[in-house]
Amino acid sequence: MASAVTPPRGMRDILPTEKARRERVLATVRSVYRAHGFDEIETPVVEDSARLFSGLGGDNEKLAYAVMKRGLTVDDLAAATSPLDLADLGLRFDLTVPLARFYASNRGQLPSVFRAIQIAPVWRAERPQKGRYRQFVQCDIDIIGEPGIVAEVELITATAAALDALGVPGCSIRINDRRILTSMLIALGFAAESHPAVLISLDKLDKIGTTGVVAELAERGMPAAALTALQAVPAFAAFGAEAATHAAPAAAQALTAESIAAVLPAGVDEQALADLAGIAAAVAASSAVPLVFDPFLVRGMGYYTGPIFEVAHPELGYSLGGGGRYDGMIGRFLGADVPATGFSLGFERLIDLVDLDEGDDAAASALLYDADVELGVLMTLKAQLVAGGVRVRLLKRPKNMKAALDQLTAEGFARFAVVGADSAADAATLDWRRLEPAS
Amino acid sequence: MASAVTPPRGMRDILPTEKARRERVLATVRSVYRAHGFDEIETPVVEDSARLFSGLGGDNEKLAYAVMKRGLTVDDLAAATSPLDLADLGLRFDLTVPLARFYASNRGQLPSVFRAIQIAPVWRAERPQKGRYRQFVQCDIDIIGEPGIVAEVELITATAAALDALGVPGCSIRINDRRILTSMLIALGFAAESHPAVLISLDKLDKIGTTGVVAELAERGMPAAALTALQAVPAFAAFGAEAATHAAPAAAQALTAESIAAVLPAGVDEQALADLAGIAAAVAASSAVPLVFDPFLVRGMGYYTGPIFEVAHPELGYSLGGGGRYDGMIGRFLGADVPATGFSLGFERLIDLVDLDEGDDAAASALLYDADVELGVLMTLKAQLVAGGVRVRLLKRPKNMKAALDQLTAEGFARFAVVGADSAADAATLDWRRLEPAS
Repeated sequence: MASAVTPPRGMRDILPTEKARRERVLATVRSVYRAHGFDEIETPVVEDSARLFSGLGGDNEKLAYAVMKRGLTVDDLAAATSPLDLADLGLRFDLTVPLARFYASNRGQLPSVFRAIQIAPVWRAERPQKGRYRQFVQCDIDIIGEPGIVAEVELITATAAALDALGVPGCSIRINDRRILTSMLIALGFAAESHPAVLISLDKLDKIGTTGVVAELAERGMPAAALTALQAVPAFAAFGAEAATHAAPAAAQALTAESIAAVLPAGVDEQALADLAGIAAAVAASSAVPLVFDPFLVRGMGYYTGPIFEVAHPELGYSLGGGGRYDGMIGRFLGADVPATGFSLGFERLIDLVDLDEGDDAAASALLYDADVELGVLMTLKAQLVAGGVRVRLLKRPKNMKAALDQLTAEGFARFAVVGADSAADAATLDWRRLEPAS
Repeated sequence: MASAVTPPRGMRDILPTEKARRERVLATVRSVYRAHGFDEIETPVVEDSARLFSGLGGDNEKLAYAVMKRGLTVDDLAAATSPLDLADLGLRFDLTVPLARFYASNRGQLPSVFRAIQIAPVWRAERPQKGRYRQFVQCDIDIIGEPGIVAEVELITATAAALDALGVPGCSIRINDRRILTSMLIALGFAAESHPAVLISLDKLDKIGTTGVVAELAERGMPAAALTALQAVPAFAAFGAEAATHAAPAAAQALTAESIAAVLPAGVDEQALADLAGIAAAVAASSAVPLVFDPFLVRGMGYYTGPIFEVAHPELGYSLGGGGRYDGMIGRFLGADVPATGFSLGFERLIDLVDLDEGDDAAASALLYDADVELGVLMTLKAQLVAGGVRVRLLKRPKNMKAALDQLTAEGFARFAVVGADSAADAATLDWRRLEPAS
């Protein structure tokens, strides 16, 4: 038995050094988002299964963990016609469905424009794979009740500020608009019912290049005229025939309605162009983050209705976060239309990139005590140091001093002193020695 | 549908003001415990059901939420002989079972004496009642691998320091030892197999007084000689015949082995007396928290093996936390004996008592903007203020100015300025007005 004691499949424990680092990162993110006027909320980790499995979560619904009703009998089991008959709750698979439920439950107590922070774990029963876990933390900010682009600008500048505070340099934000995608596909001659399939192919441009996308669309029976028109779109042609993973889109340039329209076919949604230009101007005025127009940025979820965005990092083959406007969704549990837009940072992807200082451990002190020390003296020494703002670790003086000091050093302790039977209860009189990290 | 959108039964949402307060309290607790040399860890919210339902959790096991296996078929449902056949995971109902599992999984990477912090939610499907929720946070510290009383002293002084940092004055710590209870019952003539029942009655002394306890024990058929002997115990007699809820035990006095033995029958465990006296001396040397010997403090859980303690508050009819030594349990998943002792603070009970300042909102500023403001100017003003460490909230200038200002005040904002089409992009030139809380 001893060899098989592990966390549940696909999940993991967080050990002290990593946990301290995670808490520092979360405190930084929380602090930046609060400064930008957002308010943190918390919802239960479970939601009623009728809401969780209501179709708002797309494919993620299928990955949800269902919680069994309490007090079931064997007769209940036999009578069930589906496993979900036996479940009344489920662990949340994202923070958006809970936010919609929260807003419907509490809107009377919230400001008319509500800026929400949610920093919390979600659960998905995905096939376990290296570096991906079935419990992971998401950091979401959402603005509910604001139809104008001031919401997008606040989300983008707050996210950029969080990345900056975390010491993750070099990020840019790719931006597009679902209305641009839809109007472009119409202008090119793709039938409305084919749009979801076309978007799935376009979403692979980075991976398979223009040649691959066109071949895939042809295989799916898209009209030849539409494919020819697509290949004539300047922004599409600029992408390159081959896979071009992580390349910045060629359309990166000063973002004005004119510069965006210039790389797109005629007939693209005018309001969307104006909105993107407005967002770009306000972000440029108030933030140093580069905003890059990517006319083939799609974002997977079907619920987006306007501007969409993603955090790109030059050295990474994946996005650090993303979001967009999803006006139709928050109101679903409310039976009303509520404008909403959000930006989610992928905390688990971010954590490895972060460059933060080590916090409160610069003076951290270990007291190595002999077996015959008077406990009152030892605890008085500890209390003196703690009162002075110092983190203190007690340790029985070990036989193997070197191994113990190495471990203390690895745990971030900066100095140690030996406390014996003749030590005075005054930390200043101890013989302190530095602990130097191995170089 | 709109009227029925609520969190799951027995659970609740945490709104912004309360969430901010909770995060401040948690940050304070975390910081004090880290200073005292403890290390925070995190485990998944679920554990394998074979471990969760292994008997370590006592009655709480029956309150656990079970998570259904994924991919079940109707045939699986019909074939199940018990609901738990269909579950492979469960939500943790305490932080002790997960700690035992964590220690078994990771002991090779932990110091030989491991001081753990766990600040995390647990779930129990209790009957919903006012002020009690089915998801609630516990703050536990545990010391694993230390058999000596230095562990108890560190736990008690760290807990007292946390209560002090939170501005919860007037607490005392009641202390007893399971070995004292057991040896006392033996000395009084209660048969070993009756001890659990006798302890359940003694645990009610506060509520039913000595008369009630003796009557209950007589009803359960305890020997008359043992009851007579019990009534002759000085500490028992001192308790009072009637219910004496929340009264400090009469045995409160200088804690030495002699003073403790003086109120107990002869034959009480000598080592336990010496340990309590040693704990009392070291706590007195290094902390201002009053330690009160309570010979009838029982603590419900059966797994305690040595000193046990509870936080008492003069104005409360319940304990703010408690703990004790439980040497047999942590090693259960490991197949080895591991000494352990822990102290748990009841976060949800604590939160209402806490007196902390309001944190970062002292300069919090609202920008009330007109519809025709240039978005770049508005966002530049926000960016300037944020860069100066100020929390900023944007708000469209409302028709009902008074209601809007009242809400901003209630949310903790300290000042506001109106931003119009002619405002300069310089926050220092705005006409700032104070927001005064209604007195």
